[in-house]
Amino acid sequence: MIEMNTRNFPALIMAMGIALFHAISHTRAADDPLPSWNDTAPKKAIMAFVERVTKEGSAEFVRPEERIATFDNDGTLWAEQPIYFQFAFAIDRVKALAPQHPEWKTKEPFASFLRDDMKAALAGGEKGLLEMMAATHTGMTVDEFSKIVIDWITTAKHPKTGRLYTEMVYQPMIELLAYLRTNGFKTFIVSGGGIEFMRPWTEKVYGVPPEQVVGSSGKLKFEMRDGKPVLVKLPAVDFIDDKEGKPIGIQGHIGRRPIMAFGNSDGDQQMLEWTTAGDGARFALIVHHTDAERAWAYDRKSDVGKLRQGAR
Amino acid sequence: MIEMNTRNFPALIMAMGIALFHAISHTRAADDPLPSWNDTAPKKAIMAFVERVTKEGSAEFVRPEERIATFDNDGTLWAEQPIYFQFAFAIDRVKALAPQHPEWKTKEPFASFLRDDMKAALAGGEKGLLEMMAATHTGMTVDEFSKIVIDWITTAKHPKTGRLYTEMVYQPMIELLAYLRTNGFKTFIVSGGGIEFMRPWTEKVYGVPPEQVVGSSGKLKFEMRDGKPVLVKLPAVDFIDDKEGKPIGIQGHIGRRPIMAFGNSDGDQQMLEWTTAGDGARFALIVHHTDAERAWAYDRKSDVGKLRQGAR
Repeated sequence: MIEMNTRNFPALIMAMGIALFHAISHTRAADDPLPSWNDTAPKKAIMAFVERVTKEGSAEFVRPEERIATFDNDGTLWAEQPIYFQFAFAIDRVKALAPQHPEWKTKEPFASFLRDDMKAALAGGEKGLLEMMAATHTGMTVDEFSKIVIDWITTAKHPKTGRLYTEMVYQPMIELLAYLRTNGFKTFIVSGGGIEFMRPWTEKVYGVPPEQVVGSSGKLKFEMRDGKPVLVKLPAVDFIDDKEGKPIGIQGHIGRRPIMAFGNSDGDQQMLEWTTAGDGARFALIVHHTDAERAWAYDRKSDVGKLRQGAR
Repeated sequence: MIEMNTRNFPALIMAMGIALFHAISHTRAADDPLPSWNDTAPKKAIMAFVERVTKEGSAEFVRPEERIATFDNDGTLWAEQPIYFQFAFAIDRVKALAPQHPEWKTKEPFASFLRDDMKAALAGGEKGLLEMMAATHTGMTVDEFSKIVIDWITTAKHPKTGRLYTEMVYQPMIELLAYLRTNGFKTFIVSGGGIEFMRPWTEKVYGVPPEQVVGSSGKLKFEMRDGKPVLVKLPAVDFIDDKEGKPIGIQGHIGRRPIMAFGNSDGDQQMLEWTTAGDGARFALIVHHTDAERAWAYDRKSDVGKLRQGAR
């Protein structure tokens, strides 16, 4: 298990989208596939592993079909501070939908969200938040929801940086995704976030197509409307892709155990265990958030230098 | 919507596995990607469609990422007579497990299956069959189940033809899968059959990797056994990938609407509707089982020549 501190990234941690990524790649060493990474242990371990499993005739050779790499999203591929970005989306949706819901002025947690009183909004606990997620994520068709997500993600700005949320991705991880794909890997996202929230933009931002996104999901209903079939998002949770859910989501969607996995939190522990417990060469990496200057330092146990999260 | 009769296939309907497929391909017209198909409307329609959506600059051009084709399995890619092959597997498992279950000698439907009395076994209805499916498909880890399936599918013989079940695939459809992939399509199986039952062999037989198989599934449980993580198959249905379930399964796994879909039964109707209701060029094909000589003729309404199934 390799651990990597975000303050070890020499270049920009937050990428300014794919365009800048290409610019950086081209102005740096042309033969370095991971130019935003310091030449320290994590980068060396990744590249040594990829060389071992892709070298034909090597004892640890893995055929391309089995080169599955899974990535957590929040806190691994993009930032998750000050709040999960999908939660910021939900709050913005409450505000956008408020005119159609006059009752929200006095109904919690909606009333508190509308007053930007996060503390009061969260005080009501899980039931209120589930209601808020249902009000903002269900009741429409999957196609309608996809349009709502695209509208938001192409316009909404991060409260601290003023950038688009899709520019709050980690440049080193964008490079890593591309590097793995160049080496015949299929890259999957395995996130606790909503599958329908991620899919509209992961292909453009990460190069990960919808069919390679695994996430939490709600129930869907097939019905005919005006003679046309639609899939309606129902206010009922179908699957939570977190903790024990991650190996289950991987099995359900991929049906093959990853040989590499990348995460940053307790929610990723079982995915990393499942990955590394397989036969043959296996690789797992934990991103530690230790860079207070360019991002956020919020590792739970922040001893000097060596940082660990959870029980590993 | 194109309809195709199996008796229009000029060559072998049942393929003798991949090896024979290659042999046939090479001895026939080298430039015909579908040599086992007659030069009739279905073949022409498929090839014309593929040319339209793959020709850059064409009004109906579809970029490779969106070239999704979905195939039903039972009755579309392989035969489904005299019984679903997965059901034959379950019966064989009952027989293999019987020594560990002396109580089955007097317990239905097990007792009747052990006596090869299919009629009596089915007389008990759905409850008994669910019990039989649970007894044969759950209680083990996904890795253990995968091994059981591989053992069976590489040795068990079809009762009528004496061939391996994987040789009971439709040669024209094997050619079609390869032809579509050559043209940049991603080919998916979307079957009412069990996802864990299909995945161990679909890559070898159809060229469809596990992550491109959508099917019915049971609940899984993550747990640690002797310090190692395992996924255990629980006796609880999670998802039925049939009828309305097929578009839901497609959305859940692929997250993108297919542009081509292939089926043969009522269970495929909603998948075909969902596919053809999308914008742009769309293609759907129904296989009609009309060849009593080389396979089975069991279309529900078998008028002369023109055959339809269900309400379309």
